[in-house]
Amino acid sequence: MIPHIDSVIVENVSPQIDGGKFPVKRTVGDTFHVKADVFSHGHEKIRVVLRIRKTGEKKWTEIEMIPEINDRWETSYVLTENTTYEYTIFAWRDPFLSWAEELGKKYESEQDITSELLEGKKLIGNASIKADKKEAGFFKQILSYFDKELEPFQTTEDLLKMVDDIEKRIKTDKPVETQLHKMRGLLEDLIHEKSLIPPSQDPVKEIILGEELKVMMMKYPDQSDYGEYDKILKVFVNRKQAEYGSWYEMWHRSQGKIEGKSATFDDMISRLPEIRDMGFDIIYLPPIHPVGITNRKGPNNSLICPPGNPGSSFAIGNKHGGHMAVNPEFGTLEDFRRFITECTKNNMEIALDLALQTSPDHPWVKEHPEWFYHRPDGTIKYAENPPKKYEDIYPLNFNTGDKEGLWMEIRKIVRFWMEQGVRIFRVDNPHTKPVYFWQWLIDDIHKTDPDIIFLSEAFTKPKMMKILAKAGFTQSYTYFTWRNFKQELEEYFTELTQDSVSEFMIGNLFTNTPDILPVVLQNAPRSAFKMRAILGATLSSTWGIYNGFELCEGTPKPGTEEYLNSEKYQYKVWDWDRPGNIKDYIARLNKIRKENPALQHYKNLKFYKTENDNIIFYGKMTENKQNIIFAAVNLNPYKKQESFVYVPVEDLLIQPDESYQVIDLITGQKFYWKGSKNFISLDPDKEPAHLLRVNKWSYKEQDFDYYY
Amino acid sequence: MIPHIDSVIVENVSPQIDGGKFPVKRTVGDTFHVKADVFSHGHEKIRVVLRIRKTGEKKWTEIEMIPEINDRWETSYVLTENTTYEYTIFAWRDPFLSWAEELGKKYESEQDITSELLEGKKLIGNASIKADKKEAGFFKQILSYFDKELEPFQTTEDLLKMVDDIEKRIKTDKPVETQLHKMRGLLEDLIHEKSLIPPSQDPVKEIILGEELKVMMMKYPDQSDYGEYDKILKVFVNRKQAEYGSWYEMWHRSQGKIEGKSATFDDMISRLPEIRDMGFDIIYLPPIHPVGITNRKGPNNSLICPPGNPGSSFAIGNKHGGHMAVNPEFGTLEDFRRFITECTKNNMEIALDLALQTSPDHPWVKEHPEWFYHRPDGTIKYAENPPKKYEDIYPLNFNTGDKEGLWMEIRKIVRFWMEQGVRIFRVDNPHTKPVYFWQWLIDDIHKTDPDIIFLSEAFTKPKMMKILAKAGFTQSYTYFTWRNFKQELEEYFTELTQDSVSEFMIGNLFTNTPDILPVVLQNAPRSAFKMRAILGATLSSTWGIYNGFELCEGTPKPGTEEYLNSEKYQYKVWDWDRPGNIKDYIARLNKIRKENPALQHYKNLKFYKTENDNIIFYGKMTENKQNIIFAAVNLNPYKKQESFVYVPVEDLLIQPDESYQVIDLITGQKFYWKGSKNFISLDPDKEPAHLLRVNKWSYKEQDFDYYY
Repeated sequence: MIPHIDSVIVENVSPQIDGGKFPVKRTVGDTFHVKADVFSHGHEKIRVVLRIRKTGEKKWTEIEMIPEINDRWETSYVLTENTTYEYTIFAWRDPFLSWAEELGKKYESEQDITSELLEGKKLIGNASIKADKKEAGFFKQILSYFDKELEPFQTTEDLLKMVDDIEKRIKTDKPVETQLHKMRGLLEDLIHEKSLIPPSQDPVKEIILGEELKVMMMKYPDQSDYGEYDKILKVFVNRKQAEYGSWYEMWHRSQGKIEGKSATFDDMISRLPEIRDMGFDIIYLPPIHPVGITNRKGPNNSLICPPGNPGSSFAIGNKHGGHMAVNPEFGTLEDFRRFITECTKNNMEIALDLALQTSPDHPWVKEHPEWFYHRPDGTIKYAENPPKKYEDIYPLNFNTGDKEGLWMEIRKIVRFWMEQGVRIFRVDNPHTKPVYFWQWLIDDIHKTDPDIIFLSEAFTKPKMMKILAKAGFTQSYTYFTWRNFKQELEEYFTELTQDSVSEFMIGNLFTNTPDILPVVLQNAPRSAFKMRAILGATLSSTWGIYNGFELCEGTPKPGTEEYLNSEKYQYKVWDWDRPGNIKDYIARLNKIRKENPALQHYKNLKFYKTENDNIIFYGKMTENKQNIIFAAVNLNPYKKQESFVYVPVEDLLIQPDESYQVIDLITGQKFYWKGSKNFISLDPDKEPAHLLRVNKWSYKEQDFDYYY
Repeated sequence: MIPHIDSVIVENVSPQIDGGKFPVKRTVGDTFHVKADVFSHGHEKIRVVLRIRKTGEKKWTEIEMIPEINDRWETSYVLTENTTYEYTIFAWRDPFLSWAEELGKKYESEQDITSELLEGKKLIGNASIKADKKEAGFFKQILSYFDKELEPFQTTEDLLKMVDDIEKRIKTDKPVETQLHKMRGLLEDLIHEKSLIPPSQDPVKEIILGEELKVMMMKYPDQSDYGEYDKILKVFVNRKQAEYGSWYEMWHRSQGKIEGKSATFDDMISRLPEIRDMGFDIIYLPPIHPVGITNRKGPNNSLICPPGNPGSSFAIGNKHGGHMAVNPEFGTLEDFRRFITECTKNNMEIALDLALQTSPDHPWVKEHPEWFYHRPDGTIKYAENPPKKYEDIYPLNFNTGDKEGLWMEIRKIVRFWMEQGVRIFRVDNPHTKPVYFWQWLIDDIHKTDPDIIFLSEAFTKPKMMKILAKAGFTQSYTYFTWRNFKQELEEYFTELTQDSVSEFMIGNLFTNTPDILPVVLQNAPRSAFKMRAILGATLSSTWGIYNGFELCEGTPKPGTEEYLNSEKYQYKVWDWDRPGNIKDYIARLNKIRKENPALQHYKNLKFYKTENDNIIFYGKMTENKQNIIFAAVNLNPYKKQESFVYVPVEDLLIQPDESYQVIDLITGQKFYWKGSKNFISLDPDKEPAHLLRVNKWSYKEQDFDYYY
């Protein structure tokens, strides 16, 4: 009738997302900081542990938590594996610590402690039962001190009792010899041990209330009066590449040299060393599957497609197959595997597009018409968002009566490409499919293959973008291309990296995409491309470019954010060494990223004050502050800008009037700065940005080996 | 194998506490505002409803929610009953609204809509099945418009098919007469109806996409593709007195006229009219039970209690009984019931103390020794917090092996006093008992008697104070007596009334208690008492004084926050009309509270700017802004203070240069103010505060009946 109740309150555990509905995310090697409000009624002392384990394990690892102020407890744990961990909080009213505190206070105020000592013996005795032989010896020794402390008082009490007894016996005229004999023995013992006079309390107090006993007793606590957090939370630990990577989007068929003809995997392979030399480590390919014929789109998305045009790579499927087939123009599946092997040799991996839609010629259209949407006349609906029509694309009905068939087939597709060596998927328009479909799919994949990275192309409303990340996507595209000015950059990237959003989402900053040529880059000077590159490469730990960016390609289809004559709809041949390119600059940026761990973390971004709205100033540092990087970027690609910038010297353990060196990692230039306020000047015709590493004057003459 | 998944995401529902673990709280008559983030994949239109019902009901009431910006939806519902309501959110992808939007866009861009019209017919047909006869008639009429819209195209298509057919027959030389005959008939029909020329689309469009059809279709929605919030949340609705009340703590035995002798219930009754005239509506009594003899405390908490002293009322129980008995000094249970009846006659109710502890002479000590804590020698432990000892008090062990026995006995005590007419309990030191014991107890009581109010005397750490409120306590004592200066008052009362805290806790502001004579009142002038009274009476909607405050009693036990010769430990006789009292002032304050609904709400407090740290300025208004009150208080009881204060004219719908009248409700004085910035001067020797009601010049000559 009366329920079990927790005696200790555990609430407000952080981190967590939506009350534990979704796992928080971290990266292998991260120190995982956990906090909780923990307290109990009355003035009993409590102990609190973080319980953590890998999913599937039964046994918890327990980490002692430490009280901060206002009943907030915290601890941390290093996450070493690419897997899902579970964690929760357990706490208990600790009789030993409470006893020790009360005993200490009574010692202090010189109150009688007999009762407390007897209670202490019981507590230690209980711990002793659980202890090993050596430890039990320790406890035994400690108990002897207790007895010593108790003895004189016990013995005198015993003696008093005996006197009482003898008096009674005398009154009732019973023999008293035995009693007197016992008393004599006891008295002799006491005289021999000289313990009638209580020993000086202090050394015994030190032992009884000492650190050694406390440590041992904390090892064998009485946890019977406990409380625990009412949820088991989860943290999904990604591999390093989920947080840190440099992406190159390669439009596959444009990597060749023959006009009007598709490149092959061999053509793509021949470009790998050059892309590697730019410092990229992930090659992202749009869909590599056969392209539909029916309603194929012509150049510039026209409805008429003259013969010999390739059509959109996103209109997937024709007689050669669907999502598990390779476009014969590129080569064979075998060639694709060779491409992956070559990527690996060049220390790169590939990201494949997962675009869940078909052309009207996809094999599914005939085999599984029930997976599509139908008009009243029975025909299949193409994609449309009135007045726009996508006649070459059939969307899939994820709520089809044959959900089992469709969903399992998609799972099969993902696992098929995983078997070919693909460990990263870039997912096309995930926000047009049910969110919880993705949760189901990604959970399923991560159960066996936690290293798989999913990048969400959700250029959509903020809450949808976020829930896709909560539901399992590793990374997300962001609004980066639409954030150009200081205040909006600071606000947006503070939200993404500092607030609760970074608990579940990592923003991958692409400077451009096949669909987006941002206005800032349209017919723009090299300085604009350099400026956007450095922002992408340093605001987030993971960034990317779509090919052509390195060539400063910026010709728009007038009045749009699209590229003119986009290779999305036609064959194209590029001169990859076109004059005016910024390949060296990009290579430099990626090299700096590789050499500076501060830039490989996502959540450590902080913005600092400048006095010019055209200059943005921000920094990143490692948790141990061994690597400190600042970026000062001129956001105006057309005009020189100057400003004072304010270095957070207090965070760097630099004195307000201390001098230190900063090195521009792009130019190699050195500056001597002092205190917080320092002057910078950025001419876009030379360099639109400083990327500075701080060198503290960390060595003093006293540190020199022979100084003393 | 494939799970059911929600197609609509519902998250971030507010209000809620700790993910729905505890109910939020409101007061009867409150408008309950509910918000949620709701969205779905793709571009399907969604509809969202708040589902709300009284606990125990099966059927939900559904209230349509309205989208704000960024996928946030909101609605409100008036809570009319003192009970627990349940609420959640239900949402669905609405095929009709999606269809209407798409059709509208296609009309707009003049695309073919045949397919959409056929889909629309199906949707309306489905709704029609659920509709009543009259509504079905409406749908039938609408469908005829659809047919009209479809007809010409259908018919011309039919004609084309017939022509095809005739051509085929001619080729295969079959007779064509019948076919031609049919065609003639059809043509004649068409000519007769003149419908070969499509009717002008606009009027039909208006009907098909009109408001009338939309309203009817929204009444019979297709909710098959839905999503719902994954929790059912609760809101506990208190009776009005939980939010609004004026409390008078009456030290029962000091209400008489004979020195050295306890007052009786009759003495207490004789004081009721006077307390009623001060405007109080709740009389709070300390424990009224028999007091222990063993280790009884003497005057000023001394260990030696000379004969004829009453002891602490909190050392409950002696041979006359325990928590269900009445101290014979006061009278009988019958007398107590009479006291309650007299309170009711004076429009007051009583609050009884619930102090869960005993004296060593309580009947439980013998009947249930297992309910107490024991020393190793078997004796019962008295309460202590070393070095402090409370020898006259035995604490209860709420984790006793006989939890069932103890807890049910406490429940019995509460229900016993409820039967005598007590509907409010002030609970002594709840933070020394398990929090979830209180949750169990209060839940149990509220299940049958939701009108019972529990006031928590948790003068303890902030998180404990809060969880007790979450766990069920209606009101809590606060740190009010320790908040004296402008910044700390603003910070603390913003936290209590504006932040998430007010979702579950109402702070009852006592100016003083038997344990607390705040420094600001020690040997202080009347102005200090008036100043603290007005703060208490207006910062919260529920406040109280402990008797003696109205007499400006301020003599401390030196060096403490206690009263000298506290009546907690001795008999006392007061002159309730002692010169220098502020009874009229308190009466005035309580009258103003009664007449101004803005002061009867807890969460509507807002602080405004002044230019003098000694003057605090704040306001309260009703949701409809019909009643607007400002308080300007001089926090320095010793010196006149002046300042500009800044009225939030934009919130009051007053123009920046508009004039308006404010009336000081204490003095009746009127001021003419203009715009935001206005000057005030507060002399503590006269009045330490203005309590102002705003009168807008709401009538213009144009409003005058005969103006036009």
